[in-house]
Amino acid sequence: MQIITTIKELRAWRSGVDQVAFVPTMGNLHDGHLALVKEATEQAAHVVVSIFVNRLQFGQGEDFMSYPRTLDADAAKLAAAGVEVLFAPNEAELYPHVSQSYQVEPPHLQNELCGAFRPGHFRGVATVVSKLFNIVKPNVACFGKKDYQQLAVIRGFVEDLNFDIRIVGVDTGRAADGLALSSRNGYLTEAERAQAPQLYQVLSEMAAEIRAGRQDYAKLEQNAIVRLQGQGWVVDYIEVRHAGDLQIAHAGDAHVVVLAAARLGKTRLIDNLEIHLEA
Amino acid sequence: MQIITTIKELRAWRSGVDQVAFVPTMGNLHDGHLALVKEATEQAAHVVVSIFVNRLQFGQGEDFMSYPRTLDADAAKLAAAGVEVLFAPNEAELYPHVSQSYQVEPPHLQNELCGAFRPGHFRGVATVVSKLFNIVKPNVACFGKKDYQQLAVIRGFVEDLNFDIRIVGVDTGRAADGLALSSRNGYLTEAERAQAPQLYQVLSEMAAEIRAGRQDYAKLEQNAIVRLQGQGWVVDYIEVRHAGDLQIAHAGDAHVVVLAAARLGKTRLIDNLEIHLEA
Repeated sequence: MQIITTIKELRAWRSGVDQVAFVPTMGNLHDGHLALVKEATEQAAHVVVSIFVNRLQFGQGEDFMSYPRTLDADAAKLAAAGVEVLFAPNEAELYPHVSQSYQVEPPHLQNELCGAFRPGHFRGVATVVSKLFNIVKPNVACFGKKDYQQLAVIRGFVEDLNFDIRIVGVDTGRAADGLALSSRNGYLTEAERAQAPQLYQVLSEMAAEIRAGRQDYAKLEQNAIVRLQGQGWVVDYIEVRHAGDLQIAHAGDAHVVVLAAARLGKTRLIDNLEIHLEA
Repeated sequence: MQIITTIKELRAWRSGVDQVAFVPTMGNLHDGHLALVKEATEQAAHVVVSIFVNRLQFGQGEDFMSYPRTLDADAAKLAAAGVEVLFAPNEAELYPHVSQSYQVEPPHLQNELCGAFRPGHFRGVATVVSKLFNIVKPNVACFGKKDYQQLAVIRGFVEDLNFDIRIVGVDTGRAADGLALSSRNGYLTEAERAQAPQLYQVLSEMAAEIRAGRQDYAKLEQNAIVRLQGQGWVVDYIEVRHAGDLQIAHAGDAHVVVLAAARLGKTRLIDNLEIHLEA
């Protein structure tokens, strides 16, 4: 596996190959990322993974400085997974002027769900992913469904700005007890880790009720919030939305997604479940 | 010359050729555009010109509806100039959802100079040109220096969003009496057309004074505004700025540009002159 750190070298490599599948990450790789890499290897002959902890998508008081940087371990995992190029630019390579003057601005969805609690986050994601797309020029890019709203934003700007890139969403990897794999799970204490699967359990029960025909989403959401709060969680939101575009869901919708963000101690976890209802 | 109207066909054509130079236009082509086309033919073996009157860059009360659409005459000129592909998508092809949800957002420069009088204009330009870049995937793109602020915005987002496209600025084409060539010149009455070169004359005199060593830019600007007003113009602005990035100019700057926008009757004209001072 080649490790490339400059845009110039990446472009030189890119000009010599045809079909490329791309997995952008912030590193600290777990099995969820490796599932994205596996999907990428099935999508194209050449796979590029990027590792870049993107300052632009972290808010005031968020964990940009403490976000785990584990490049050597990450590189070993990617090499073993058959990745051809690891693109690991430094801050000055992607933000040479420190500030990023031109941004990709998402619509109001950026201020809803996680966006309501992380101002500027999805603008930062859309902007850095656009930059990476213009550098790597992939034919296909793979993103996890665990970051469901991020996937919706990426599908959105790819369509609206006519990027010629196929976006593939990959199912969420989970621990045996159901907890969605996430770099931030590493922040949990042992006691919090034991409690963390409650988030998935509550979503699973909501999904079961919706599959059984319940359509009073506001009531279901409220019950789930109260239940997690009773177990000591601070809940940012639990919402049923249209799958895909994340518009407000209505009774009768055939394809919905239940999304949640909640905090255990200092750690903020997110998860979601898609539900396809029979007509 | 091929006339292509869909993104799909344009991409199919693009996949079969190597180096492409691109000239995006809103049609109603004059000799200024043809100078861009000539430059493009010197930059790459394959030249694409687009014609699309972009609703997004017109403000409330501006001339979107009345902007001249002259596709047949334009196509004849482009074919004669050696253009290989004319890309002429309709509104639904570029804006299938009517509204454009994701935009390329320029920095504060979008609210200065022309931007102060045309809210949203440069966001609309940056967004549609990004879309066209992602569709045409040119290696080089040519823009006129007459739209100097537009050129600065395009250079800005190309750099900041890492588009792999070389931007070439082409000198302003002028009538024999100095008037900058513009589609909007066609709106002028005969009397206004006779008067219109005053804008270039005032800028030329400012440039001569700056070349002669004057550095009291605010005073020069004010004098020029008063003079044009005395001739019946409504002046939006006349400003001396750093060339290139259009930051505020300071005494001692070696490379400046004098920019103006002013109205004769119902027609708004813009022009500018770059000045390289000896060290």
